[in-house]
Amino acid sequence: MSSLNDILSGNRYSISRLLTAIENDVSNVTDLLSEVYFHAGNAHLVGITGASGTGKSSLVNQLAKAFRQLHSEASPLKIGIIAVDPSSPFTGGAILGDRIRMKDLVGDPGIFIRSVATRGVLGGLAASTSAMAQVLDAAGYRLILIETVGAGQSEVEIANLAHTIIVVESPGMGDDIQAIKSGIMEIGDIFVINKADLQGVEEAERVLRANLQFAHLSDQTINSSKSDLNPTWIPPIIRTIAINGYGIEMLVRNIIEHKEFLINSDLWKIYEARRMRREFHVMLRDHLYHRWLSNYPKEKHDQVLADVISRKISPWQALKLFNEW
Amino acid sequence: MSSLNDILSGNRYSISRLLTAIENDVSNVTDLLSEVYFHAGNAHLVGITGASGTGKSSLVNQLAKAFRQLHSEASPLKIGIIAVDPSSPFTGGAILGDRIRMKDLVGDPGIFIRSVATRGVLGGLAASTSAMAQVLDAAGYRLILIETVGAGQSEVEIANLAHTIIVVESPGMGDDIQAIKSGIMEIGDIFVINKADLQGVEEAERVLRANLQFAHLSDQTINSSKSDLNPTWIPPIIRTIAINGYGIEMLVRNIIEHKEFLINSDLWKIYEARRMRREFHVMLRDHLYHRWLSNYPKEKHDQVLADVISRKISPWQALKLFNEW
Repeated sequence: MSSLNDILSGNRYSISRLLTAIENDVSNVTDLLSEVYFHAGNAHLVGITGASGTGKSSLVNQLAKAFRQLHSEASPLKIGIIAVDPSSPFTGGAILGDRIRMKDLVGDPGIFIRSVATRGVLGGLAASTSAMAQVLDAAGYRLILIETVGAGQSEVEIANLAHTIIVVESPGMGDDIQAIKSGIMEIGDIFVINKADLQGVEEAERVLRANLQFAHLSDQTINSSKSDLNPTWIPPIIRTIAINGYGIEMLVRNIIEHKEFLINSDLWKIYEARRMRREFHVMLRDHLYHRWLSNYPKEKHDQVLADVISRKISPWQALKLFNEW
Repeated sequence: MSSLNDILSGNRYSISRLLTAIENDVSNVTDLLSEVYFHAGNAHLVGITGASGTGKSSLVNQLAKAFRQLHSEASPLKIGIIAVDPSSPFTGGAILGDRIRMKDLVGDPGIFIRSVATRGVLGGLAASTSAMAQVLDAAGYRLILIETVGAGQSEVEIANLAHTIIVVESPGMGDDIQAIKSGIMEIGDIFVINKADLQGVEEAERVLRANLQFAHLSDQTINSSKSDLNPTWIPPIIRTIAINGYGIEMLVRNIIEHKEFLINSDLWKIYEARRMRREFHVMLRDHLYHRWLSNYPKEKHDQVLADVISRKISPWQALKLFNEW
């Protein structure tokens, strides 16, 4: 297995093995992850989310190249990319597609790309993505781009791991509705309309702006995790054409500005604490459940469950029975 | 509060109050729900899922009307409709829209319509939808249509509550990809291409058929919850035009046939047991977490969490600390 020193020194093979171990079963590597954890906390995590077809992968590709070029060879910026696809196992194809699209990054030794598919439950995916980000963070990757597809609850959870959240739209997708529904509008720090050379870009921006206003108007009434502490950052809307690089410089500038805003306003620390509390409670929930399952006598569990299924007792009564444990 | 007798006798006001209580906080009404539970288990739960814009609500509307007409006035079929929208609180509008679209059902005393929005966590939504279905079931509603929007993980969870799962597509939506990704293809019992008068219906059916084949080919390799027990039901693809009723009769016939298939093949019981086991474990997970939170000393919890946030200890070490509890 990889050692802490392998990870800290940035050995790509060791990092890769540890990420695979996390994906397979994080509980096998918690000792190493604990050590890694003490060396993490220096990276800027940037989440990029949006429906498939908006050109997110190309955008991530361009962002990585632009950030690399921004730093001199003397003090290079190492960039990690975690592409998460919270969907069925069928996405092998899509992930391969992403890899192909990112092929001009693969030769760059300062960039580490990892695709993650769903294996287990929902909470688990956010937790393992977080653990992977910790590993890259400890290995000296100072910018970590976390790309998620779609706009469901799971994507929101994963996007929530990031310090800066970029929501990608494109003209004529009608995603605006999806995004509003899933609560993506409320958590976006930067909005991008990619494929801005397509027809309908004006309309897309108009709709986006209206939705954004609506989301922020409603902030008071909802359980918003961010806005109450974020009085001065007004999420910009940036037009890009990822395939030719249009708008990328502006986007890079906004990402840097958002990071500075967070740090200067002390929100960086506040968000980080909040994020870690949330992440930890997902782990805790999972842990308590599995601990219970492994401690509770199986025959008794099966009997109670059979009684619930035959409606001899109700699930709520069963919980009370289990409660002594 | 509503009494068991009010519910069993089908008092609409009492049912409505209990559903609201479930939506607000199920833990307040578990005693009543336990009693209700012993009188449930007779309804056919039919899940209808698909992206927004496919015309699901109109379809549900037509289905309800058709099923009502199929039964004589002497022995009418009472139908419950639960419209779930697992999304941000912004969906007040969408729910209102659904209600308006369903307006020709509202006057029918044999139909009970309920819209549910997301309040809390993901698992919670499936659990409360399930509890609501139990209430309608015990109140004599023998057919319960559970409508969910979209194709995310949460929709799959909710669809999984049903005995029969209908996946709705429409031409030119490109949802096929979404559906495959979220695992909807694998759990669908009946596929509907609604708006079949639109251009692209042939293409939509071709893509759907290919995806379906792909999903079933892959069944062996994935953690499929159904297919291994379901060797003989071949999911039909039915074209409908909900707004003028085209195809509805065929869809109704297929729903009835699927129910008969489940009962005759004993799969009804097997699925029911499996479904209840899954549901119960969601409740159990939630319960264990909240029990822990209310038992563990708050100051100690806050201290440990602060140590995690300042990276004095790792989250995995914190779990070990909490483990004694």
